[in-house]
Order: sequence, then C-alpha cells, then structure tokens
Amino acid sequence: MNSKELVEKISLKRSFLCVGLDSEFGKIPEFLKREQNPVFEFNRRIIETTAPYAVAYKINTAFYEAYGVSGWVNLRMTVDYLRANYADMFLIADAKRGDIGNTSKMYAKAFFDTIGFDAVTVSPYMGEDSIKPFTDYRGKWAIILALTSNQGAGTFQYTEDKYGGLMLFEKVIERSKSWGNTDNMMYVVGATRTNMLKDVRRLAPDHFLLIPGVGAQGGSLSEVADAAMNDKCGLLVNSSRSIIFADTSENFAEIAAQKAMEMQQEMAGLLSNKGIIK
Amino acid sequence: MNSKELVEKISLKRSFLCVGLDSEFGKIPEFLKREQNPVFEFNRRIIETTAPYAVAYKINTAFYEAYGVSGWVNLRMTVDYLRANYADMFLIADAKRGDIGNTSKMYAKAFFDTIGFDAVTVSPYMGEDSIKPFTDYRGKWAIILALTSNQGAGTFQYTEDKYGGLMLFEKVIERSKSWGNTDNMMYVVGATRTNMLKDVRRLAPDHFLLIPGVGAQGGSLSEVADAAMNDKCGLLVNSSRSIIFADTSENFAEIAAQKAMEMQQEMAGLLSNKGIIK
Repeated sequence: MNSKELVEKISLKRSFLCVGLDSEFGKIPEFLKREQNPVFEFNRRIIETTAPYAVAYKINTAFYEAYGVSGWVNLRMTVDYLRANYADMFLIADAKRGDIGNTSKMYAKAFFDTIGFDAVTVSPYMGEDSIKPFTDYRGKWAIILALTSNQGAGTFQYTEDKYGGLMLFEKVIERSKSWGNTDNMMYVVGATRTNMLKDVRRLAPDHFLLIPGVGAQGGSLSEVADAAMNDKCGLLVNSSRSIIFADTSENFAEIAAQKAMEMQQEMAGLLSNKGIIK
Repeated sequence: MNSKELVEKISLKRSFLCVGLDSEFGKIPEFLKREQNPVFEFNRRIIETTAPYAVAYKINTAFYEAYGVSGWVNLRMTVDYLRANYADMFLIADAKRGDIGNTSKMYAKAFFDTIGFDAVTVSPYMGEDSIKPFTDYRGKWAIILALTSNQGAGTFQYTEDKYGGLMLFEKVIERSKSWGNTDNMMYVVGATRTNMLKDVRRLAPDHFLLIPGVGAQGGSLSEVADAAMNDKCGLLVNSSRSIIFADTSENFAEIAAQKAMEMQQEMAGLLSNKGIIK
C-alpha cells in the first residue's frame, strides 16, 4: 500500500484511527479465557466491531511474545483473520526492531513475508543499515521511532547535537528522510508532546506520522490535528487500551466499538475542518 | 546469575567466549534440512561440540522470527536443550527490544519467565522506563546497546551532546549506570571500534561488556582485551558466523568446535597475561 492509497482509505472511512491490539491475556474478559485461543478470540471480536471506524490495526508484539509459541500462534491467527476479512486494512507490527543489516533483513522477512504486515516500527539507534532492509521491501513501510510518548523519552531523544543544533529526535528525522520516501517511511511521534509535533511536521511536511499516546497516555486528538495534520491528513492516530479495554463484560466488543466510533466522529470533524473530506 | 558467578565461570573454563546462534535456515548444512526441526538440530550439534569452550550462548531472535511460529518452536527447543544439559551456561536473547514501560515488562516476561534467558539486549532510545522492567528481574540482566559494530552505527551514536560533551553512546552509559548495577546491566560495544572501547571502559570500569564484531565483522580479540579487559575480565566476546558457519559439510560441528577452541585458547592466554587465571 502506498501513501496515496492510504489517504484514499482515510477519506473513504472518514477516519485516521489505528486500533492497537495490545491484547494482554491478563486483561481480556474472563469468559474468553475458556476459549482455545483466547487472545485471538478477543482480537477477532474487537476487530469485527471496530473495523468500520478504523483504517489500521497495530499489533504490539510484546503482548504475544510474552506467551511464547502460543502467543505467536495468536498473533499469526489475528493477521490471517484480518487479511481474509479486511483485506484493505493497514497492518502495523509494533515491534520496535532494528539490528545490523543482515539481522534487520531477517526481521523484515519475519514481519513482511512470513506474517504479512504492511509496516513495522523500528528503532533508529543503529543507523541506516538497520533500517534500509525494511524500506527495501516494495509496498512496505518502516515506521521509525522519533519522539516517543513515554516518561523517559527525553533522556536521549532530547540530546541537543553540538553541531547543527537539532535534538536527537529531529536529527533522526532529518537524516533518515534520505533513506526512503513518503511511500515507505513514517515516524512515531507521541501525542503527549504536541508542541514538539509542530517541529516534527516542519522537518517532515509530507510524511505520515504514527501518533501513540492518545487516550490512556493522555494526549488530545484535536491538539494533535492542530499541530500536525497536513493537507493529506498525514496522521495515523493509535489508541489501544482506551478502546480495547474500555469494558470487560460480555459486551466488551460493543463498548470498544462505541469508543472507536467516538474517535472516528471526532476525526471526521477534524478532516472536514481541514477540507480533506466534505 | 550474578557477576561474581559469571567471573568464576570464566576462570573455570578459561574462556569468555559467547557463541552466537545466528542460525539462519538458508545457511545450515543441506543434510540437516531433512530433519523435523532443522535449526534446532543444527543448534544442538553446535552446542554439543562448542560447549567446552564457551561460557555463554546468544540467540539472535531475528533468525527465528523469520520463520514465524516454527521459528519460535526451534528457539524454545534450543533454550530448553541448553537448560537441560548445560544448566550453568549464560543465555542471552539478542532481541534488541525496548518500548514503553508496560510493554517492556511484557518483553521481560517473554524472555526471562516464558523462555528462560539470563539476559536480553535492549535498545536505549526510549530511556529509563523502557529498560527498568528488565533490570527489575532478580538475577537477570539488561544488556544495553551503547556502541554497535555496524556500518551506520555512528550516525546517531556519535552525536555529540551540546551540554556535557559526551557522545550519545557515552551518554547512554553515563545515564543508564544509575538504573541498575554491575549485577544486572551490561553494555554492547562493538569490537570494530577498539579506540572507543577504551572510552567505554573509563565510563564503566566495572561493568561487563558484550562485544560483538570479532570474526566475520573484522574485530581482533587481543585489541579488544587490550582496550577493555578489567581485573575481573569484564568481557563476553561474541562470535557467530565465523564459528557456526565455518563449514557446511557433515563435519560442520567439529569444525565449529575447532574455531571455538582456537578462540578459547587465545582467550586463556589473555586471561593469564592479566593474572586472572594461572
């Protein structure tokens, strides 16, 4: 999928919502734990009800790896289910990988070929040869960590370069821009730092940004759009816990859909204000 | 395992060799590919012959994930085999993980509880809360990327901080030292940059360093020891491809053992020169 197709999907669905499947076994409704693959069953129901409001799903690999082989089975079943029933969804492996070239190549194979994701989140710490194996895949994306939404993000990401004056997260964007293009590279920028979102948008006016931290981590959707929406939207806003764990009763999937719809409606308003949809 | 026990193991085996199981399916001997779990069979034979010369094994998760669920089965079988037959080996998951706190906690669970590694390599980009969940496990280790051995390493790792004058990889060491101690934290420092190894050793005089890049990537063992061995050794030197893929005939495991023994003998000399063993 290229960026033009992603923009079309956003216009069509009037949404730039990415639902994060941080599907921790311990937090899913009790009655599902009797199923053979509880996490897959949880995901399947969440996807069924939230799909009308989302353009993307993001699978956080940690919550699957924590259960070893059976976790990977649930991850695989979830992606297969999405591909079979929602073929045009943009699927992100939130894996934060990155290693020397020959190793990153194996991670790219894992997530793009073996499992079939459209995009993988990658850490920039090891530089160009750790990221190129992801952008080298035709039609696939590397989503590079720039400014993350967690408490400790600033310790290294705010390091101000003695030469050039950029902070590390800005340098990551400036340098990496030449390693790919707006059809195979996005940046992760946390919603909890909206003032810096503007700086990011100045450095990368045309790239898509994947924004975590709206919802459970406290970021606001309208502030994010003010700071960083461009004339093709250019945003995927992820929400995980505040949608998927909004409720733990038998009605959890309907409540999740309600939360997703509320976000989609707010997003439609923001897209309309910007003249991207009517 | 704490650092004292690791030092004792190094003295006993007269070796600080870590064998890297970067066991790419495409590179293992053809005759093994007929086995039911070829990668596990490859690992088992490599471990059997190289174990006398090694104190640690490092499993590079990418080479397993590339094959999805079956890759994780082979990874799991390898760790189970090591635990059952070589209970005192130091086992490293070379996974380069790191995410927001609640997610890193799941990665720590995955590698320490579910699979049973002693240590995980982690990326420092996201700061303290991405690393603490690993050091919070009693008897387990976070091995933090400082200066890596790949071509693109310098782009961000050499960023010179406007305040304080440290390069990013030095800042990573200086800041992270307070997040753990010498019993639960090591640093990855590439063997291909021996002049900088000295700077690292000055900043972290007592920490163990995990050194990749000896062998296939071109680093020299004696230069590494000159630059960074301390009076308790303080080094684990990893070699992957130059041991495990030294040969692809039916005798591959014996040739691998020969390579491992050559390294162990050189290591014994270096340990002896330093007065760590007699």
